[in-house]
Amino acid sequence: MTNVLFAAISPKWKEYESPLRDAFAKAGLDDIDLRKDFAPEEVDYIVYAPNSEIQDFTPFTRCKAVLNLWAGVESVVGNDTLTQPLCRMVDHGLTRGMIEWVTGHALRHHLDIDYFLNHQDGTWEHRVPPLARERPVTILGLGELGTACAKALTDLEFPVTGWSRSPHDIEGITCLHGADGLETALSGAQILILLLPLTAETEDLLDAERLALLPHGAVLLNPGRGPLIVDEALIAALDSGQVAHATLDVFRAEPLPVEHPFWAHPGVTVCPHIASATRAITAAEVIAENIKRGEAGQPFLYLVDRERGY
Amino acid sequence: MTNVLFAAISPKWKEYESPLRDAFAKAGLDDIDLRKDFAPEEVDYIVYAPNSEIQDFTPFTRCKAVLNLWAGVESVVGNDTLTQPLCRMVDHGLTRGMIEWVTGHALRHHLDIDYFLNHQDGTWEHRVPPLARERPVTILGLGELGTACAKALTDLEFPVTGWSRSPHDIEGITCLHGADGLETALSGAQILILLLPLTAETEDLLDAERLALLPHGAVLLNPGRGPLIVDEALIAALDSGQVAHATLDVFRAEPLPVEHPFWAHPGVTVCPHIASATRAITAAEVIAENIKRGEAGQPFLYLVDRERGY
Repeated sequence: MTNVLFAAISPKWKEYESPLRDAFAKAGLDDIDLRKDFAPEEVDYIVYAPNSEIQDFTPFTRCKAVLNLWAGVESVVGNDTLTQPLCRMVDHGLTRGMIEWVTGHALRHHLDIDYFLNHQDGTWEHRVPPLARERPVTILGLGELGTACAKALTDLEFPVTGWSRSPHDIEGITCLHGADGLETALSGAQILILLLPLTAETEDLLDAERLALLPHGAVLLNPGRGPLIVDEALIAALDSGQVAHATLDVFRAEPLPVEHPFWAHPGVTVCPHIASATRAITAAEVIAENIKRGEAGQPFLYLVDRERGY
Repeated sequence: MTNVLFAAISPKWKEYESPLRDAFAKAGLDDIDLRKDFAPEEVDYIVYAPNSEIQDFTPFTRCKAVLNLWAGVESVVGNDTLTQPLCRMVDHGLTRGMIEWVTGHALRHHLDIDYFLNHQDGTWEHRVPPLARERPVTILGLGELGTACAKALTDLEFPVTGWSRSPHDIEGITCLHGADGLETALSGAQILILLLPLTAETEDLLDAERLALLPHGAVLLNPGRGPLIVDEALIAALDSGQVAHATLDVFRAEPLPVEHPFWAHPGVTVCPHIASATRAITAAEVIAENIKRGEAGQPFLYLVDRERGY
């Protein structure tokens, strides 16, 4: 019997129980006991969400892996009691959802759809947008999500530049890295998309100085992590017209407090953290695959490198 | 010397003269005389827009082809004086622009972007959209544009059904045809996209009866031709909620008169005929290619079948 502890906030049990049981059966894992409570020393795997009550992993003495339901691990990776292998969620559904959000909002800004929505008053102005091939896009972050979005935008003929800490080589995408690379990546970005993980190095990355490197009137999409952006610097850049619009899905505090200036700013679209939602059916398949691998002594998928922090 | 008459409304000359000269040079056509006026009997090719002053083609006795700058030919194809070969514009730029407009507005409705734009008041409701793979899309019309849009939507994992008069077989797309096929195509369409040519058979196609076949709350995109839709039937379907929203780029009269109910209807987004705009640079390349073919005695590209009407 393999004991799998489901450790996410209570409403998630309803959402995940049946997809997980289905995925275990489909993966041929017929000897699994899935529950919301076990004596810690009896747990083989923890299906985990960082906002769970469990913050001390010390008593989980035989636990073989902590399988995160979220793509982001920054709020758990620094937990010193967590000595077990930690796996990120890389969910096909999450990746597809992110591709759809990113391409949808990139096209919204590219086509200037907001202009037409705001001119339903008889204004007939034949404003033809340029083609995507004339609209350079930069993606900061070339992980699973950044790379997938880069490919989708390239399919639509946007010229895509990707930047990441370490060098990458991806067909059809201009890949840059390091400090010089960042300057080049920002200076060409008519649409800038943030898909970096949150680490000590990426926090506050988009400050006044870096926002000033963008072409005047650039558009910013942040479906990544809130603290990548210095909020005050972004407001100032929007007020000056340096940034024409920011569509933000993530924030330093969530839900974004009603009094935060992003809500009222005409240059900001606030989305309630929906771009990177994990979908239960596809996520359960990833959890099942990793338990199957663990039981077969194979390496886990999406294992977190604790030093890099993601 | 090959005499090419530019016969479009006057402002277009400024837009096209230099792209045409560049495209002729690039195609190796170095013996072309391009002008806005010639004696009719001296003209070899007419670069034509249907709103041009020329409506009688009888005097153009040695003209080898009329090369349309527009994708639509319905206002010229019935002209009995036009006995010369007529070619439609199939412009890579036009096709790309249509793909971008269609995918952008399909994703806008799929992601319910309008909802978020209308709730920038502190509302934090975690409304996660379904994935594209759960959102069936139907395209009426599988010509160059319909097929290109179908492929782009399939790349984004939308399940796409295409319908056309004659049978088609396109990989990854459910192809239907005929009257029965139309019923099936409409009944599954959460998003319906009109990319049919305007002919006697397609005029008024979307009437009350056919709109009633759609699933309740479907979304309609019309970047094709205005008269495909019976306006009054659409308004009624919007009022009843049968159609949740219509994003329309083409109309029976353009510019759409200020008093037309589409402007004021909250369920309609009016766009000023921008989805299928020809781009001068890419269109000029097609014109040059067809003149090159004409001079070499090769068959023209995109020759209109006068009986089918497109």
